[in-house]
Parts: sequence; C-alpha cells; structure tokens
Amino acid sequence: MQVEITREYIEQVEEAIARDDKGFILETMSEMYPADITTVLYELDTNESKYVLDLLPPEIGSQILGDLDYDIRTDFLAYFTSEEIARYLNLMDSDDAVDILNEMNVQRREEVIALIDNEEKADDILDLLRYEEDCAGGLMAKELIKVNINWRVRQCIEEIRRQAEDVERIYTVYVVDNRDVLLGRLSIKALLLSKDDKLVKDIYSEDVISIESFRDENEVVSVMQKYDLEAIPVVNIQGKLLGRITIDDVIDVMQEQAELSRQLMTGISENVEEDDSVFRISRSRIPWLVIGMVGGLLAAHFMGFFEADIAMLPALALFVPLITATGGNVGIQSSSIIIQTLSSNAVIFENFAQRLFKLIMVALLNALIISALVFTFTYLFRQDLKLSMVVSVALFSVVMLASLMGTLTPMLLDKLGVNPAVAAGPFITTANDLLGLAIYFGIAHMLYEL
Amino acid sequence: MQVEITREYIEQVEEAIARDDKGFILETMSEMYPADITTVLYELDTNESKYVLDLLPPEIGSQILGDLDYDIRTDFLAYFTSEEIARYLNLMDSDDAVDILNEMNVQRREEVIALIDNEEKADDILDLLRYEEDCAGGLMAKELIKVNINWRVRQCIEEIRRQAEDVERIYTVYVVDNRDVLLGRLSIKALLLSKDDKLVKDIYSEDVISIESFRDENEVVSVMQKYDLEAIPVVNIQGKLLGRITIDDVIDVMQEQAELSRQLMTGISENVEEDDSVFRISRSRIPWLVIGMVGGLLAAHFMGFFEADIAMLPALALFVPLITATGGNVGIQSSSIIIQTLSSNAVIFENFAQRLFKLIMVALLNALIISALVFTFTYLFRQDLKLSMVVSVALFSVVMLASLMGTLTPMLLDKLGVNPAVAAGPFITTANDLLGLAIYFGIAHMLYEL
Repeated sequence: MQVEITREYIEQVEEAIARDDKGFILETMSEMYPADITTVLYELDTNESKYVLDLLPPEIGSQILGDLDYDIRTDFLAYFTSEEIARYLNLMDSDDAVDILNEMNVQRREEVIALIDNEEKADDILDLLRYEEDCAGGLMAKELIKVNINWRVRQCIEEIRRQAEDVERIYTVYVVDNRDVLLGRLSIKALLLSKDDKLVKDIYSEDVISIESFRDENEVVSVMQKYDLEAIPVVNIQGKLLGRITIDDVIDVMQEQAELSRQLMTGISENVEEDDSVFRISRSRIPWLVIGMVGGLLAAHFMGFFEADIAMLPALALFVPLITATGGNVGIQSSSIIIQTLSSNAVIFENFAQRLFKLIMVALLNALIISALVFTFTYLFRQDLKLSMVVSVALFSVVMLASLMGTLTPMLLDKLGVNPAVAAGPFITTANDLLGLAIYFGIAHMLYEL
Repeated sequence: MQVEITREYIEQVEEAIARDDKGFILETMSEMYPADITTVLYELDTNESKYVLDLLPPEIGSQILGDLDYDIRTDFLAYFTSEEIARYLNLMDSDDAVDILNEMNVQRREEVIALIDNEEKADDILDLLRYEEDCAGGLMAKELIKVNINWRVRQCIEEIRRQAEDVERIYTVYVVDNRDVLLGRLSIKALLLSKDDKLVKDIYSEDVISIESFRDENEVVSVMQKYDLEAIPVVNIQGKLLGRITIDDVIDVMQEQAELSRQLMTGISENVEEDDSVFRISRSRIPWLVIGMVGGLLAAHFMGFFEADIAMLPALALFVPLITATGGNVGIQSSSIIIQTLSSNAVIFENFAQRLFKLIMVALLNALIISALVFTFTYLFRQDLKLSMVVSVALFSVVMLASLMGTLTPMLLDKLGVNPAVAAGPFITTANDLLGLAIYFGIAHMLYEL
C-alpha cells in the first residue's frame, strides 16, 4: 500500500520504540513498501532505525539498506556486526551488495565477505569488486537469465524457474553459446507464444546491443538512452556475457552527473548536501571564495593604477559594478548554452566557423541593446556626454568579449578533457571582472586623455 | 548492428542522394538501428532527410520521427503531407503520436487524425489529446496488456498474442475486473511458470502502485523513482485503468527539468539551444541582462551619494569589485545548496531553527576566513590600517548577509510556489551587489566619520 508518512505516524513509531512495542511497528509496517519505511527511518535516530530494521523480515531490511543514501548508510552500518551485514548482503543483488562493501574499509569488507554463506553470491561479489566503480563492470549486477542457443523452450522455462529467486525482474532472456559468448536475446513474447519443444535458435533475435565491461559509465548512459534500453548486457573483450546493467542504476548515474555539474557551476568544489557537517560544507565552498577574493584583490591592484584618475573624476568609479556585473552575467549565459551543446550528443561534427559567426551575431545584438539603453539612462541621469560614451562603449566591448570568453573557455576545457562546467561559475565571473575593468579604464583613459 | 557514424559515411549518403542511388542507402541503412539513422538525418538538410525517410520501411520511419528533437521535427514535418504523417502515426505508440500532434496547429491536427485508418489508434489518440501535456494523463500511452481477473492463464497468453503487435515491450500484465478497475498485476514469472488452466485470481499480485491521470508530471517522476518502477499504470478517479507510463518518458521529463533549472540559474529565460535562431537566443538572454543593467545603474546612483567621499579617498573605490564579487559568489553557493535540498524528497519535515543555525555557522566560518585573508593582504598591500579594517569588516558582513539572502530567497519562492532556481542566478547576484555596496559604504562612512 502507498501511504503518506505523517508527522503523527513518526511520533507514534518513536513512542512505540520507547515502550518496546514491537506489535505496533510490525503491524503498521507490514503494509508498507520498503521505500516508505526508508522515509520513516530518515526521521528516526540511528538507534531507533536499528531497532526497526532488526524487527523487519531480512528481505525487507536488505531492500531498505540498498535504498539508503550513501552518507547515511555508512554511518548506520557502523552499528551493525559483520554477521548482520553479511546476512543482508546474502539477500541483495550483487551490484547493490558491492556498493555497500565499497563503502567499508578493507578489513571490514574481507570480514563480511567471509561471512556470506551463499557461495554463488560471494563469488559474484568478489568478481564485481575487481571492477572500477565508474565503469560498466562497476555498475553491472551478475544476476541475469541466460539460456543456451541449443536448448528448447521447455529447458528455458526450467532455467527461469531455477533462477527466478535470484532475479528481481525479468527484463530480457539472453542467449549464449557453449562458451558463454552473447549471441542474442529471447523476447518474453517469443517465450510465451512458442511451443515447449521449439528450439531457441529458431526463435531468438540476434539483435542485441551490449557494452564492454571497461567502458566508462557515461558511455553506458548515452548508449542506453540513445537506444531506449531498460537493461543492457555487459560483455568482456571476447564477447562473453558477464552481467547486466538496469535502467535504475543509470538514472542514479545521470542524477549524480547533473548534480555535480550544477555544483561546479555554482562554485561548490565537493559533492555536499545540506545535512553534511559545517566543516565539510565550509571546505567545499572556500576554494571558489578564495579564487574570487584573489580576483577582487587583483582588481583592486589594477584599479590602483587609475587612483589619480578616480580622484579627479570620481564618477568613473560609480559604474564599476555595472561593468563587472554585466560581464559576469553575459559570461555565465554564454557558457551555459555551450555546455548544454557539449553535453548533448546531437552535434557530432561541429562547424566551428559557422557557430562562431552566430555567437558573434547574438553578442552584437545584445551588446547594442544594452549599451544603447545604458547610454540613454546615463546621459539622462548625469547629463555628461563624454562619461555616457565611455560607459556605453566599454559596456559594448565587455558584452562582446565576455560572450567570446564564456563560449571559448568551456570549449577549450572540453577539448583538454576537463569537465567544462568547472569554467561556468566563479572562474569565468572572476576573469570577466578583470577583463571588464581593463576595458573600462582603458577606454576612459583614452577618451579623456587623462 | 551498432555502427559508428563517420564523416565519410555522411558524405557518401549525400552523394548517393545527389545521384538518386537508392540501393546504397537501403543497403547500408538496413543494418542500422533507427537511433543511428536519426543521427545521420541530423547531418543532412531537410530535403535529403525526407528523401531518406521516404525510402525506409514505414515502421522504421515512424520510430525515427518519434526520436527526433522537438524543434527539428516541427520544421521537418512541414515538408510532409497530412496523408504521410497519418501513415507514420498509425504505426506509433499513442503517446508519441500525441506528442507529434501537439506540435501542429489545430487545423492540420484535425486533418491528420481524420486520415489515421487504424480506428482503435485514432480513438486512443483522441482520448489522450484531452489531457494536459504535463500531467500523468499527458505522459501515458494507451498500449498495454491487461487481463481479466476471472480468466485462466491460457486466455492471458491468447490476449498477449492478440495485443503483441501493438505493445512494444511487455513490462507488466495488468489485472482488471469486469469494469476495468485495476486490481493488481501478473508477473511474467508467474505467467511463464504456471499451468495453462490456472486462474489469474490465484496467481496475481495485489501489490501494484498506480497514479491518477490528473497528477503532475513531477509527481510521476518522484513516485517512479522512489519505488524503482520501470512502468506505472495510470488510473482515473474511480480506479479504472487508462494507460501506462514507461521509464523512458520519465527520463525525458527529468532531463527537461534539469535543463530548465540550469538555464534559469544561469539567467536564460526561455528554453533555447545553440541551434535556435540568433533572435530567439538573444531574446532569451535580454531579460536578465536588463535586470543586471538596472541593478548596475541603481548601484551607480547609490554610489553617487558617496561621490565626495570617493573623491577624497579614491582607494575606497578600488575594493568595489571585491565586495560585489564576493557577495555574488556566496549568494550563488548558498542558493545552490538550498535548491538541491528543496528539489530532493529526502527532507520531509524541516527543522527550520536547526537549519538556520547551521547555515549561520557555515557563513561565520567562511566570513572569518575570507575577511582575515583580505585584512592581511590589504594591510600588506596598502599599509593602511583603517582602510584594511573597513574592507574586511564590510566583507565579513557581506558574506553573512549574502548567505542568508541566498538561502532564504529560494525557500521563500518555493513556499510561494515559484521555481526556486529562478532566484539563484542574476537575481541574487544583482541584489547582493546592491546590498554589498550599501554595507561597504555604510561602514566606511561610519569608520571614517566622513
């Protein structure tokens, strides 16, 4: 049953735990989905959560442990004995079990693996631990249904019956030869609609998209998305079937990527969440603040050369925020558009000259509009033709240059193999501040012949 | 076969089209997946693409049309007669057909629908057109496999055989009563492993998560993600089964949302891509540039009150970029973290006081570090104790206030039902510029008693 978790229910659970009322918890939670129980646990403290988990059937408990957020799970599992953890891992898909083992130190990990009594599961886990976490091998699970090309439908159904306990959902039945080389797939439709004595080789489809275990997780995401796959088989370099990756794991990777890009673009250097510690959040924010500070001090140093000019014409200083803010805004907009293009797979052959021309046209249009507006307002506001000209000409140049910088920097970083989102935030803003000031004071100096 | 699309292959296709060599195109493309052919079409012009599509079997053509990007498809379909479009829609899942119809004007739409000769499909389409595009009803397809609770396994297999042509993939078999009310689901495992004369009511599972047709698409995303579903049935308010939503549609919604938030955060007001027209891109960027400009002019106006002070102490002006840049960076970082929390479902009961305290602690730590560094550098650089104090005290206050603003503004907007990402970009930057300048000149005025 889908339930709404209310504040009242959480309080009732807390009270039930306090008075050791197992009945209330078991009764109310037996109707709930594991994902909803997970939501409840997020509201309890660690001891209370452990109390609840110990009460629940281990099948449910293992699903909840698989669901939990990385950080919370690491803290939570410190309260468990290795025996308890091994019992839960026994019941999990091999990929989820490996994710949990990867969060532990080596000693604990060895201890837990030695205690897993399902030998096949333990072998699968040891096998998966060999892969890097961010490649196809690190994402795959060993649980899948495979049948031999020489079997009949009857044997396939037997095999599914045998494997049914291990495999959470049947996405596809994979067809292999005697050496386990992936040859194709057998659709559920074909299985359901064929007579028992039909041969697999007569009804299977050779049309199967697979991915090698060493491929990067980003490649997994783009292949599954491009071909709209809900599961993809993973093979080794000889084409042997090793495991499969399902769409839910890929969605997690997509979300992590989006989150990371967003944090990089907003000047946060580590993956933090609001419930991390004060020091961790602070540490993740300091690097960009220091870069911004260095930029600001450099700007102060640079403007120092014009201190005499400012003393003579203090109105010049008034437009500094306008110049720096416009440069920053244009730079971020430009980099946002180019990063989007770089991250999509739509454009495979770039026509550089044509794109550059278009970029310059957009910049020109915006630069004309903004500088015309600023010229008008400044003239109305100060009645000073020369100052209005200096400000609007500088602004025009700033928009043009910030557009170019905002577009070319991410392209350059991408070519160098750096995530271009790094460039979109404070870095471009800081560079544009300096650039804008240089243009502004340069033009002022020239026009006033100070 | 998975193929790599090369520059050479595109050129060969263009030449083949030029000399009307149908054989080359048919031969090379018959081996390719529709998604790969789509990639080729992106590189051809509209007439060439139409030439290729006309050659391909309509089943492949309909998949390619379903795959195409929204903007490109709208332009492309202008080259098709209503008859041609109707022929492709006939072969598409109802949800994809409706997406395409929604891109047309009303007259064209009516014309196309009248030409769809599969009557069931036409009815499904008319039914789906009634729903808003961004609710569960607007996302669902009518194609699904449902069986009656009173049937036997044999009848179910018959039904799947009958419906097999329509349904692209079997995710789940839904179980309904005589009035079409959703009662549960029948797993593929149960179907494969049960004898032909078994009754559905004895082997089905009541455990099915569904969603009402009027629910918002964001709810669909969060329910499917929370419960790790690859498909979800859509019901009306009486519980009647109307359709189903599959995970690939939900991934599209997730990506649109992420894209939109990112664009809002970077000051782009419409959904644009690099290949949109110069005017469209320019128009999407102007609103925020104007807001930034107004902010800059207000800043100039405000600083005008201190023009005499600046004339007396021009060094004061040098630190303006440092103050505004730091305020902007801190504001964006703060809003990024809170927006992430607001968009996740992890925190359901917020503890406001505790969060505010933590926020203040992080701000305090960063403010202390940054202002201590700036005090040191400014003192070394200018040898002016009073100026160093003014700058570092102002910077300390700016970091504190920008953290608060950056956190509270998105929370307030979220409470008011506005997408909080709007606030994260130029808006907060502009507000922080003004705030920072007010603090800076206020403190300078006080400390110098100018």
